[in-house]
Amino acid sequence: MIHQTSDHAPLPDPCFYSDSHVPQLARVAAAVKEHGALAGVELAHAGASGPAASHREHPLSPTAKFPHYYYNPITARTIDKQDIAQFRRWYRDAAVRAKSAGFDIVYVYCAHNLSLLQDFLDVKTNKRTDEYGGVFENRVRLLRETLSDVKDAVGDTCAVAVRFAVEDRRRASNITALEDGRRVVEALSDVPDLWDVNVSDWPWDSGSSRFFEEGQQEPFIDFVKKVTNKPVVGVGRFTSPDAMVSQIKRGVLDLIGAARPSIADPFLPNKINEGRHDDIRECIGCNACTAEVMTYVRIRCTQNPSAGEEHTLGWHPENVPPADDPSKTILVVGGGPAGLEAGHTLAKRGYQVSIADGGSEWGGRLVRERKMPRLSAWGRVVDYRVGQLQTMPNANMYLNSVLTADDVIGFEADHVIVATGAKWRKDGIGRNHDEPIPGADLPHVYGPEEILDGNLPRGEVVVYDEDYFYMATVVAERLARSGCKVTYITTASDPAPWTINTLELVHVINAMNEMGIEIVVGTSVTSISSGNITTSRILTGAESNRKVDAVVLVTGQISDDVLYHELIAKREAGEIASVERIGDCLGPGQIAQATKDGRKAGIEFCSTGR
Amino acid sequence: MIHQTSDHAPLPDPCFYSDSHVPQLARVAAAVKEHGALAGVELAHAGASGPAASHREHPLSPTAKFPHYYYNPITARTIDKQDIAQFRRWYRDAAVRAKSAGFDIVYVYCAHNLSLLQDFLDVKTNKRTDEYGGVFENRVRLLRETLSDVKDAVGDTCAVAVRFAVEDRRRASNITALEDGRRVVEALSDVPDLWDVNVSDWPWDSGSSRFFEEGQQEPFIDFVKKVTNKPVVGVGRFTSPDAMVSQIKRGVLDLIGAARPSIADPFLPNKINEGRHDDIRECIGCNACTAEVMTYVRIRCTQNPSAGEEHTLGWHPENVPPADDPSKTILVVGGGPAGLEAGHTLAKRGYQVSIADGGSEWGGRLVRERKMPRLSAWGRVVDYRVGQLQTMPNANMYLNSVLTADDVIGFEADHVIVATGAKWRKDGIGRNHDEPIPGADLPHVYGPEEILDGNLPRGEVVVYDEDYFYMATVVAERLARSGCKVTYITTASDPAPWTINTLELVHVINAMNEMGIEIVVGTSVTSISSGNITTSRILTGAESNRKVDAVVLVTGQISDDVLYHELIAKREAGEIASVERIGDCLGPGQIAQATKDGRKAGIEFCSTGR
Repeated sequence: MIHQTSDHAPLPDPCFYSDSHVPQLARVAAAVKEHGALAGVELAHAGASGPAASHREHPLSPTAKFPHYYYNPITARTIDKQDIAQFRRWYRDAAVRAKSAGFDIVYVYCAHNLSLLQDFLDVKTNKRTDEYGGVFENRVRLLRETLSDVKDAVGDTCAVAVRFAVEDRRRASNITALEDGRRVVEALSDVPDLWDVNVSDWPWDSGSSRFFEEGQQEPFIDFVKKVTNKPVVGVGRFTSPDAMVSQIKRGVLDLIGAARPSIADPFLPNKINEGRHDDIRECIGCNACTAEVMTYVRIRCTQNPSAGEEHTLGWHPENVPPADDPSKTILVVGGGPAGLEAGHTLAKRGYQVSIADGGSEWGGRLVRERKMPRLSAWGRVVDYRVGQLQTMPNANMYLNSVLTADDVIGFEADHVIVATGAKWRKDGIGRNHDEPIPGADLPHVYGPEEILDGNLPRGEVVVYDEDYFYMATVVAERLARSGCKVTYITTASDPAPWTINTLELVHVINAMNEMGIEIVVGTSVTSISSGNITTSRILTGAESNRKVDAVVLVTGQISDDVLYHELIAKREAGEIASVERIGDCLGPGQIAQATKDGRKAGIEFCSTGR
Repeated sequence: MIHQTSDHAPLPDPCFYSDSHVPQLARVAAAVKEHGALAGVELAHAGASGPAASHREHPLSPTAKFPHYYYNPITARTIDKQDIAQFRRWYRDAAVRAKSAGFDIVYVYCAHNLSLLQDFLDVKTNKRTDEYGGVFENRVRLLRETLSDVKDAVGDTCAVAVRFAVEDRRRASNITALEDGRRVVEALSDVPDLWDVNVSDWPWDSGSSRFFEEGQQEPFIDFVKKVTNKPVVGVGRFTSPDAMVSQIKRGVLDLIGAARPSIADPFLPNKINEGRHDDIRECIGCNACTAEVMTYVRIRCTQNPSAGEEHTLGWHPENVPPADDPSKTILVVGGGPAGLEAGHTLAKRGYQVSIADGGSEWGGRLVRERKMPRLSAWGRVVDYRVGQLQTMPNANMYLNSVLTADDVIGFEADHVIVATGAKWRKDGIGRNHDEPIPGADLPHVYGPEEILDGNLPRGEVVVYDEDYFYMATVVAERLARSGCKVTYITTASDPAPWTINTLELVHVINAMNEMGIEIVVGTSVTSISSGNITTSRILTGAESNRKVDAVVLVTGQISDDVLYHELIAKREAGEIASVERIGDCLGPGQIAQATKDGRKAGIEFCSTGR
């Protein structure tokens, strides 16, 4: 951030508006460059998107307006002529600081609808009547001036790049946006040293795998290389080397950007370079990472549980502490995300690991979930770990192995990890109900378990969501595809409200609309009778009735911890030495929690570490 | 927080679960004690209310359940017997650390529905079948044990207090809660050294002045002193010394707690002690402070703009830097919150200050707003400042003084501060509409300006909210009281969504229901015609029509900055030396922003800065 008026607090965006910020960012640049990389910094002014929560300086906008995204009671003020002169100075000063901190590439930021410069380009946010508003040349003026200023300031030794959103996909019907995007690239074609192009805003740029394929931005950004002689970099959740090579060979991009795939596997480039394609821990596109940014905490990754814990717990994505004694044996009961991660970590450490699962396929909850609509990429959590484990001589894998407590004791392992997962409730206890919903035991009432098993209702079906994440809308889509007439009802004010954090909410809503699923929000199912449900509006308590053929209650889950508690009793009786539980068996949660638990159990076993 | 499983991130709650936390909290205790006060620390375990966002350890609950309040995809797990033993150790260890850090009073926390101990008391969250669940004696067991443990650990030199919610006001109809609250106090009557009692959860405890009177908790907590021989402290937004004395004299409380009033005026006790009642900067109960906590940034106060800026900007609530030259003159144009705060600060510094306002009453926006339903306490922003200014010989106050640019130049002030406020739009441009709403210029379309002026419509009225804070629901209530049949429509998913942060949302909804105001959420008014409006559902785009007699558009505001821009032109022509604008004239916002702007202008004028 180049100035106090650009303030995304409580997001911890680094600042570069004072010389006192140089030393810490110089450490970042030095760390990046230590292994031969170039260090880049994206200098930004958030314009109307910052809610002025920390510095409490009025945000700036080409024309006064409410903040983008935020509900804070403040209006971004119209940036006047004197402010524009200052803005240009802030950018120049920040660029000079970036250079002095050792950065090689200095960005001008104009993307994600999070940038004052982008707001100037946009006729919806720029209604000025001076030389910075109106016709295209006026609206592009400040971006052109800023690029020129930054090049003058640091272009002698730094590359000056522009992060540019060529298209605002919120406005699919407004072709002006796309045309303007092309005109900007044409107008400034060889001014920046690098074009870093994408689409806005974030839910379309960092689209999840439920709604977007790898390389999905190609049709929007493929014109750029035809317009400029400068190199072009882009993104698109690239995880497969083939997809990357294809875009380079076909002249779509010169350089591949891959943030989420590098969170899932920071050694992605090295593994490609070394031809170790099977060792790549591929991003599953679940956006657990964005959810943490959206909720103002540090990053988390389903595939790479070390992400965000490098500093806090000292975890490394590839390296694990060696076994204290490689002859020690660990039995992992349950081959879902938690059990596989624990087993893989322990096997990597050198222990003798056995993983047993009662099913006929590896994956635990993902065996069925990966077959549900739009969730197939999530299966990579299983495939990566099983693929790695199958190459390891000290890992033994047993399917179709339902173990009793006596079986476990008979195994005589030095340590037992119980990762037996959880089951969905069918009684309706969830976020709103703390007692069973009357009628939940009727035969036309289903839970996610039946739907995951392919035991589907017919006719008019209500899917009731007190889970608030993905399962209810996935169930609704599954049933709509099978021919049911589906109504989605939730107590929340928005459908699937957690998905605003995974950048999926808008796509979830669009998909339900496209499939003809009726959406009812802010409503509780209070009782169920044969052929009928009673609902209550949260805001008023007003009750109404609705005729239904079936109801699917997507509410809470219950840990499948029977074996664990039996083993605890055996431990108290001295029959077994060491038992722990992890993942959904400990407490139902997202898959990222299960792999984190697995990693923790694997790292901390007989570890002297912190 | 006594353990990693108690994790309110991104809230920056201090932690006390490692000896490494002692030095920084020792500094806090030392600072508190420096002037003769006792230092207390509220040791807490958040139970199911923490979403495990930072430490990522499964939250704990008497019985497994989703987190309170948060939508995070995780289930708080059932705390088992071994965990309970550990929990008691965590509390003891934290108490020992608190003692070693120098705290005099160590709390056990059981309030706000943010505590594992409270969850044990509550039959809705405790469904255990062991000796910690079921009958009352079982549910109170862990609180009793914890108090006993903490007394054993530090009771030799520290007072052990309990923060206890005697009543859960979310359940007004469930008398069990109140009876249980009394039973807890009876059961533990003389065990703690101090009872610190209130009601839960937070929107009822720290209720805003729009919905709660001073001392509003008295009917819920007044039994406590009858049951215990130990001293009792309570809260209730006490701002007036008379109300405090009354509760003490009548035996309701022994000690007065006053957090928000102390944010508004940290010198409240001293001013009472010195008999300086007129100098008290009374809390207006707007809950701008809680809004900052709810949005994870540091505290802010409407009445005391120094709050939260003591460290960042070096501001002090009472002390200001002296004038560099007391003969310098400053003209403030506009006597609203920003202008009065700037004028008061400059007069305190010793400058010659003149404040001119075009109206017949001091207060700017508050002249009319304080007369609207439920907003009278907000007028204290004006009363405090005008009261102080009227005692200062170097402050001159002029009402009924509309100043032109030439008038201002003729005044020959060394510096001019323009604080001329803002006006509500009537064209419908707001958070959803970036172009005027078709039909907004029809004669039956109103804006807040007309309602504030008492120019009210009749019949069936739609109040349309794209402002998202208080004005639309205040207008709706004003019109309902005048006999209109009111429908409140907003594009947001919740009514008045910012008010969840001021802890008012539930009360706003209840008040609208009580007054028969229909609430329509997630809906845009897309056009207005004579006697009719067209609306569009945000989720689906589905349009419908509604018959209306009138529409009130509560959307954006426009700065009243004509005079400022005229003066800037004069400055460029060399006719005036120094001009700035502050408050709503710079950018419309909450009153806390205006007083902050005023303070800033006042402090920074001719200042050598920190």
